[in-house]
Amino acid sequence: MPLLPFERGKTSWEDVVKAAQAHRDETIAAVEPPVPDVPAELPLDVTPLPRQLLSAREVELTETPPEELAALLAKGQLTSVELTKAFLRRAGLAQKLTNCVTELLPNLAIQRATALDAYLAQHGTPIGPLHGLPISIKEHASLAGHDVNAGFVSWVGRPAPSDSAGLLQLLDAAGAVFYARTTQPQTLMHLETSSNLYGATVNPFRRSLTSGGSSGGEGALLGLRASCLGVGTDIGGSIRSPAANQGLFGLKPSSYRLPMEGMAATMMGQEQIVPVIGPLSTSLEGVRLFMRACLRQRPWVRFPSLLPLPWREGEGWERTAEGGCVKKLKVGVLWDDGVVRVHPPVRRALKETVDALKKVEGVEIVEWKPYKHDLAWEIIASLYFCDGASEESEAIAESGEPWRPLSEFIIKQNPFVKKLSVSEIWDWTQKREEYRAAYAQRWNDTATRADENGVPTGAVDVILCPVGPGAAPLLETAKYWGYTSQWNLLDYSALVFPVTKVDPTVDVKEETYNPRNEKDEYNYNLCESTPAVVWCVAGMLTPLDDPENFAGAPISLQLVGRRYEEEKVVEIMEYIISKTGLPFKT
Amino acid sequence: MPLLPFERGKTSWEDVVKAAQAHRDETIAAVEPPVPDVPAELPLDVTPLPRQLLSAREVELTETPPEELAALLAKGQLTSVELTKAFLRRAGLAQKLTNCVTELLPNLAIQRATALDAYLAQHGTPIGPLHGLPISIKEHASLAGHDVNAGFVSWVGRPAPSDSAGLLQLLDAAGAVFYARTTQPQTLMHLETSSNLYGATVNPFRRSLTSGGSSGGEGALLGLRASCLGVGTDIGGSIRSPAANQGLFGLKPSSYRLPMEGMAATMMGQEQIVPVIGPLSTSLEGVRLFMRACLRQRPWVRFPSLLPLPWREGEGWERTAEGGCVKKLKVGVLWDDGVVRVHPPVRRALKETVDALKKVEGVEIVEWKPYKHDLAWEIIASLYFCDGASEESEAIAESGEPWRPLSEFIIKQNPFVKKLSVSEIWDWTQKREEYRAAYAQRWNDTATRADENGVPTGAVDVILCPVGPGAAPLLETAKYWGYTSQWNLLDYSALVFPVTKVDPTVDVKEETYNPRNEKDEYNYNLCESTPAVVWCVAGMLTPLDDPENFAGAPISLQLVGRRYEEEKVVEIMEYIISKTGLPFKT
Repeated sequence: MPLLPFERGKTSWEDVVKAAQAHRDETIAAVEPPVPDVPAELPLDVTPLPRQLLSAREVELTETPPEELAALLAKGQLTSVELTKAFLRRAGLAQKLTNCVTELLPNLAIQRATALDAYLAQHGTPIGPLHGLPISIKEHASLAGHDVNAGFVSWVGRPAPSDSAGLLQLLDAAGAVFYARTTQPQTLMHLETSSNLYGATVNPFRRSLTSGGSSGGEGALLGLRASCLGVGTDIGGSIRSPAANQGLFGLKPSSYRLPMEGMAATMMGQEQIVPVIGPLSTSLEGVRLFMRACLRQRPWVRFPSLLPLPWREGEGWERTAEGGCVKKLKVGVLWDDGVVRVHPPVRRALKETVDALKKVEGVEIVEWKPYKHDLAWEIIASLYFCDGASEESEAIAESGEPWRPLSEFIIKQNPFVKKLSVSEIWDWTQKREEYRAAYAQRWNDTATRADENGVPTGAVDVILCPVGPGAAPLLETAKYWGYTSQWNLLDYSALVFPVTKVDPTVDVKEETYNPRNEKDEYNYNLCESTPAVVWCVAGMLTPLDDPENFAGAPISLQLVGRRYEEEKVVEIMEYIISKTGLPFKT
Repeated sequence: MPLLPFERGKTSWEDVVKAAQAHRDETIAAVEPPVPDVPAELPLDVTPLPRQLLSAREVELTETPPEELAALLAKGQLTSVELTKAFLRRAGLAQKLTNCVTELLPNLAIQRATALDAYLAQHGTPIGPLHGLPISIKEHASLAGHDVNAGFVSWVGRPAPSDSAGLLQLLDAAGAVFYARTTQPQTLMHLETSSNLYGATVNPFRRSLTSGGSSGGEGALLGLRASCLGVGTDIGGSIRSPAANQGLFGLKPSSYRLPMEGMAATMMGQEQIVPVIGPLSTSLEGVRLFMRACLRQRPWVRFPSLLPLPWREGEGWERTAEGGCVKKLKVGVLWDDGVVRVHPPVRRALKETVDALKKVEGVEIVEWKPYKHDLAWEIIASLYFCDGASEESEAIAESGEPWRPLSEFIIKQNPFVKKLSVSEIWDWTQKREEYRAAYAQRWNDTATRADENGVPTGAVDVILCPVGPGAAPLLETAKYWGYTSQWNLLDYSALVFPVTKVDPTVDVKEETYNPRNEKDEYNYNLCESTPAVVWCVAGMLTPLDDPENFAGAPISLQLVGRRYEEEKVVEIMEYIISKTGLPFKT
């Protein structure tokens, strides 16, 4: 059944919602063999359930890292059809457990997988580095022939352009199989994922918490290992918050490395803060596989918005072969952004990581002092909705759907949302540039010398920092963007990686802390047990009063490189993992 | 004497002008030995005069290409002091002949040159690749400690920032000697160079014609060989029009390759059409020397607006060593942009170049059909002054100075100048992106195959096209931007090079042509003898009625590469020159 388009005066927004969810359920019902039923009473932590409900082979396949799957597929030791079926079933389960899917694509995916298997059988060689690998997609990346709504009821029934989004074209050419499309919040501008179309997507490690956002459907899907590699987008934390909340790897590249062409969203044409697209993966190597597969196609030839930067291996940060003694690696540690203090488990994760790094030969740890991160938020928040959020307001008003709480928060309760004049935009843009220059200066100030061309050398290589002020927040409370939006403002490369999980016996509230400001106080209080405000598709969740709200929630950190240093950040991450054994056992 | 700042109610704009010109004259008077006087009655073509008025050694030095000068300086076979003095004297002459200087910097330059000579004597090695080389600067590139006015009377008296413009910092670190600052038009948005502060800068090859703009002071200075390497800026043709009008090399790089930090101009913070900075030079190798000297400093580390693109030799276009048989070079020829037909000498220059190229082994010539260049102008013109040109209007109104005719033309008579809303800017930005995508598609459509990664291969390498619709126009008539602004809209790499000169016996008007539109008709009529409208600093020029308005004017062409293909364009240019003997003898 196609989605019911919203038409003013003819359909109600509730009708559209019902039809959209019915469509989703039909696509799940079409999966063969049928997706298993889940218990009526779900535990808070649903991550063990897929292992109980799927076959051993399905579990094995879906829990294998993407780079290994790609290798097996390329050698013909695994068929794409078998793999795709396994991921389809696990994705169906993920929907029943966390509400993260807008539609599955069983027909399209099996057809594609079949063709790829036939190609390999015939030619003996894969069509590309992602040959046969199932990849999940955030809904607003247009898929040709499918509806694309970006989380607005009034946009339902808008067909995608005849060409899929630019990035999907690249993944397709590399051999990917698209099998699942995932949820996103109303406006795309939440650090959680709730819309009137699909309700809230929840965190599989603790369903009272958010999966993050705005790529929160991807987060929950990958968190349940119902995808090993997915496509997210990020303008303030939307790849990284879901990656962090589920203990995944997620890369926010700098602007114009991967094509944003063909995304459905408001604010198209806004360039002051450039949204980016990038991977979430269950493995670091999955991130690299994704970037390599796209950039080897020299996408700037087809998409002139892009920079002509191939994936540059080993350029920014050299180490000797054999993993031996390294060229000094200088890590700046941002413990606190000076605005909102992180919760105890995040500080512990930072401390454990730093302690482990201190034991690694050649690694130097220095403190990274925040530089006016409150000003950074003021600048980015002023530039986000510089039309006064009129597009979002109109898209919501059009169908009469209610404002979701975090849409209200980021637009109606945000003092920086104003309709700006051209002159005001230019002023803020100059402030952005000044801020970027000042931050670069601070980074260069960590250099120990200059090379023969006067280039600062021996500076900090990466910043290690939190991804957010705590573990995955309770629903409707993810209100502090600063730890992620900071790097959007600077357009830096930022990689999220898993470190540990919340342990209530260790991660206890700091009773003596005096919050510095209102935001700090709000976040501080989130630390405590709170009656979880949970709503979702009808009957799926029930309210709970839980003294250990965050127990078992993944804690992740962020490794940040300068602009266009994606390769360097990935390589340093790889080195750090190899030397420290991250993520730490809990 | 410092410049007299404009203060409303205290100074008149005429007072400020007098003081500014007096300051300029004083800096010229301070040159030692004194700058020679010029005849009271100047010929139309003043290019022979420096040879008559300077010493043989001065002529030899100033007419040596920059790369040879740099080599002599680096080896200590020439002192920077001697060279700088020669260029100072010739620049003083250039001012008297074409009115192209805002100030000379004899004290600063000789001091700097002396220090560099001492450094070389002491260390035996140059401080950088531009060691001791005099470089001229368009005025609006801030020079620390000096006034910067961008062509507005009301801006006189504004000190430059404490740091010089980013690009000047790079040139300085590479060893350059700044010795002359040059004129620019009111608003910086003319293809000629006239302001109330300094009057009009004229073309040394024919003083009834414009030197072009907005970097027209550079154009005239280099045209008279009073500089061998200069700094211009370009948002619609401002490096290329002066380069073309004087038969120079001029490179407009794509955006964010060289720093625009520290430029004084209106519309700061506007990013939809990015202004760029780049070199004008008397030699192609001078262009490369400039780019290399800047990019080897990895300026993106200091200026985070920049892309991390070093000067990439031999990457985009390979040819065998020894200048032998080449990998096929595919040149698209744009004979006409479909909007305004070029004058006969430009068509002849194109034809002569194409004929010469056809004789070169491995070169393939194809026709490049224009794609909606009228739409391109509509988009770029709508984005230029999207605040309704209020900053320009205010800057002019502040002092009460009159609007220059071409300021009126590009702002008041321009139907696309409107105060846009944020939504309208986003709409135009999307149109720009669609246009860029469509143009890339057309470029890719010339490919003959795809490589193993699906990248289009065998496509056109460069577009060969006019720089403007004729030779240097008469003053106040440079009203068609399309042949240059086209490549700003697309952000392509564009290099101007000299081809020939106007010969009235050959370049005769096409009597039978029927203009396609109003712009075409205006340009067509410019072909004819017209009473030249000449005004300048008082008494400098007299009106003339000249039947051969353009005789002897240089004709140049443009070689255009895709975005960020500056290296490729320079390398192909070098190859073409080596094979065709360009510029052609006239």
